[in-house]
Amino acid sequence: MISQIELDRLLTDRKNLLMIAGPCAIESESQIVSTAQYLKGLGSHVIRGGAFKPRTSHKTFQGLGEEGLKLLAKARDATGLPIVSEVMDTDHLNLVESYVDIIQVGSRNSQNFSLLREVGKIDKPILLKRGFGVTVAEFLSASEYITSGGNERVMLVERGIRTFENSTRFTLDVSAVPVIHEKSTLPVIIDPSHPAGSARYVEPLALAGVAAGADGLMVEVHPAPDKALSDATQQLTFEAYSSLYEKVGKVASVLGRQL
Amino acid sequence: MISQIELDRLLTDRKNLLMIAGPCAIESESQIVSTAQYLKGLGSHVIRGGAFKPRTSHKTFQGLGEEGLKLLAKARDATGLPIVSEVMDTDHLNLVESYVDIIQVGSRNSQNFSLLREVGKIDKPILLKRGFGVTVAEFLSASEYITSGGNERVMLVERGIRTFENSTRFTLDVSAVPVIHEKSTLPVIIDPSHPAGSARYVEPLALAGVAAGADGLMVEVHPAPDKALSDATQQLTFEAYSSLYEKVGKVASVLGRQL
Amino acid sequence: MISQIELDRLLTDRKNLLMIAGPCAIESESQIVSTAQYLKGLGSHVIRGGAFKPRTSHKTFQGLGEEGLKLLAKARDATGLPIVSEVMDTDHLNLVESYVDIIQVGSRNSQNFSLLREVGKIDKPILLKRGFGVTVAEFLSASEYITSGGNERVMLVERGIRTFENSTRFTLDVSAVPVIHEKSTLPVIIDPSHPAGSARYVEPLALAGVAAGADGLMVEVHPAPDKALSDATQQLTFEAYSSLYEKVGKVASVLGRQL
Amino acid sequence: MISQIELDRLLTDRKNLLMIAGPCAIESESQIVSTAQYLKGLGSHVIRGGAFKPRTSHKTFQGLGEEGLKLLAKARDATGLPIVSEVMDTDHLNLVESYVDIIQVGSRNSQNFSLLREVGKIDKPILLKRGFGVTVAEFLSASEYITSGGNERVMLVERGIRTFENSTRFTLDVSAVPVIHEKSTLPVIIDPSHPAGSARYVEPLALAGVAAGADGLMVEVHPAPDKALSDATQQLTFEAYSSLYEKVGKVASVLGRQL
Repeated sequence: MISQIELDRLLTDRKNLLMIAGPCAIESESQIVSTAQYLKGLGSHVIRGGAFKPRTSHKTFQGLGEEGLKLLAKARDATGLPIVSEVMDTDHLNLVESYVDIIQVGSRNSQNFSLLREVGKIDKPILLKRGFGVTVAEFLSASEYITSGGNERVMLVERGIRTFENSTRFTLDVSAVPVIHEKSTLPVIIDPSHPAGSARYVEPLALAGVAAGADGLMVEVHPAPDKALSDATQQLTFEAYSSLYEKVGKVASVLGRQL
Repeated sequence: MISQIELDRLLTDRKNLLMIAGPCAIESESQIVSTAQYLKGLGSHVIRGGAFKPRTSHKTFQGLGEEGLKLLAKARDATGLPIVSEVMDTDHLNLVESYVDIIQVGSRNSQNFSLLREVGKIDKPILLKRGFGVTVAEFLSASEYITSGGNERVMLVERGIRTFENSTRFTLDVSAVPVIHEKSTLPVIIDPSHPAGSARYVEPLALAGVAAGADGLMVEVHPAPDKALSDATQQLTFEAYSSLYEKVGKVASVLGRQL
Repeated sequence: MISQIELDRLLTDRKNLLMIAGPCAIESESQIVSTAQYLKGLGSHVIRGGAFKPRTSHKTFQGLGEEGLKLLAKARDATGLPIVSEVMDTDHLNLVESYVDIIQVGSRNSQNFSLLREVGKIDKPILLKRGFGVTVAEFLSASEYITSGGNERVMLVERGIRTFENSTRFTLDVSAVPVIHEKSTLPVIIDPSHPAGSARYVEPLALAGVAAGADGLMVEVHPAPDKALSDATQQLTFEAYSSLYEKVGKVASVLGRQL
Repeated sequence: MISQIELDRLLTDRKNLLMIAGPCAIESESQIVSTAQYLKGLGSHVIRGGAFKPRTSHKTFQGLGEEGLKLLAKARDATGLPIVSEVMDTDHLNLVESYVDIIQVGSRNSQNFSLLREVGKIDKPILLKRGFGVTVAEFLSASEYITSGGNERVMLVERGIRTFENSTRFTLDVSAVPVIHEKSTLPVIIDPSHPAGSARYVEPLALAGVAAGADGLMVEVHPAPDKALSDATQQLTFEAYSSLYEKVGKVASVLGRQL
């Protein structure tokens, strides 16, 4: 398991892009462990996987819960890579914290100020996603609920906003990268998967984010996307992620960064 | 104090518009009790007041907390009117529930599915506000997290959505009224205060909502709006609310409703 | 035919709501004349009908052109009601002007400044529709291209803006009514048909507009909407328009207006 | 002057990014000629400059008109580079066509179907900008008004859409690049200047566009942006454009393109 010092070095090193990847939802041991091993082999830094899923409809797959976190921990054991998963409320915070290295606060909780205050008291890095109806200024205000509580290890994730355009699921606001960098010292991560809504748009959006100066990427990758229990259309195959990874490395290198 | 039977009759009676009013935040006993007495005299049905305030910035007034709920309960004692206040997280749910007659779930928690599930187990009516970045379809899906838990006493509040227009704080989506009525049996309440962002636009938006078929209104009223600790620009004076109330009554009456 | 003095009285009389109605597109003599006669009988003031249609796709019905204007003029002859139709470019301005009493500039030309300057030189009233991507402030600036040219007989039409909400075709920005009234002396007309996108939402949006203080309505009405060559879903039958008309009259009357 | 064959080769060569640059508005001979000479030296391909300016307010600088086109032609004479300028209406089309090599149709005329039909009859390449309230699907439909007229030399420019986010002037919809490439064979150009609204965001947006697969860029460059008569905040200095140009070349090269 990664030491806190190593993790902090990983998260704060602006020279190296932080590559976070993994399936939308943890579905089985073989799914998450094989994905982690693939990502480890490629050089990705952090494994993501959802155990408690915030789904628009209560009738759809809601995640494996604590069982999912246990499987995610197995993926860490098998690879040594740090893991991140989403916490959906203050009640589950201790549980999630006990399993993961990095805690994710999702888009729909972007202005759940009670939860933000609680994660501000925790001694683990936080991945805070922008709400899809939230301005950059409000996003930064939300991050201050965490940092003002004493936890300054916050990473900000741009994941697309709601607009009238409907050829993609959300509109990636790539300008959020330079705007946030101007107003905050926190790293900015691009999630190209949720705005794309379709696997074939993920690579161009990822490259756009890196070219705009993002400090990392968070990408949905699944061993068999067409069989995924959620977000089936937007998760990348291993092959597609390898292609993305290679091109990201090239773009990063000419802009003074590296993978 | 109002009996549950009377409350249910009040909330489900589509003939009578449900008038909910009160200050953005509870600030003092005299503020909330005088407001409640004024509203009682006019004929309003439910007193609202915020005790736990979801504020964009952690540096602004966050509400009086439980002390605010106690003051709100005094306003109920003084008038006999039922009271509503917002719950911000599952941790505070029991506390808020112990004081109020109706529980409000705010815009920023509109897709906080953990909280929605918890209020679905409660035996009190829920006022669910639409998130400002949330579609009507998602709003209805969110309400099903509550009703599928067994609590079918849910009222849906349209309070404006995020658009490019900036002459008002949000854009009231008045078409949500007929759309929701077509797809759901739940009552629809219009909050004209938050989209207006300015007291002088509240009355026209309230009248528009009633004319579009809303089942009630929720309006911010304050004894001295210019001295309010939050939302100072959009709260109505007693005089302005009385004017609105009279016109709402007239419009309702010609459309087969009444106050 | 209506005299200019009578027309001006009609358009500037804030006491009486201005009711403009008619089909999306002029399709045949019997269609437009029968509609005009029906509207005359009801008490509507102005007949609308499109001859040059701005259609998103070049493959769809583009209107009858000058032949349509001739048929519209027959509807005026048959009823004595003034007529309005859209001009799409400066080239057709003289042609359209020679037939109609009021010239409409459509949403997609809302910031066609060349056209606005030309209609500013004309001695006929202008119905200027708000662009669906245009702020109220820009809408008012656009109107000044006309008024600064000397033509101050401009009516401003709110017809819905582009937002992320997709249960309606556009989102009616009903708050534009009080905002424009505060910043301009020009009358504000609500077009409930285009934002609704569906006939069953037209009446609630029309009533909302009137309740918010609009000075008039422009509604699409067709003798047989299901056979219409354009906008088939949103045009009202005569029966539905009569119902709307009656309710609009009631709401107007309690707010100090009349039909 | 460039031959039509050379121009077509330039515009259709997907291997080489098409670099279009120049001031928002043509202001003087020295301004436009010095800019053109600077751009020629750097290797940019096309000089842009506005002569007829579509301005939100009729009180602001509207461009030099035909005098501006003459100055732009001098810039071509001095450098041999092809020139592009905007046509605002059908009346000016012959005039603009007589001076420029490429005709631009601006955002506010994106759905001015009369103008689109007219430029569809012309034997010069068209630079069609996306309206800021227009979907990608509608943008493509608009382009078909031109191509169905026989003129298939159309380039599509993404220049930002209207959203609720207000830290930038518009939100660059970078996903439009892969979406349009999937549905059309027309080249896609990114304008990073208008969405940025501020010079300091132009480079990251330009790089994002290229990384997403754009076939070219159109950038506002001015010898002294702080003295510009329009868009003063978003035009780049020569120095800033040289920096952008160098980085664009690097990103292009690792993605199989070149300047």
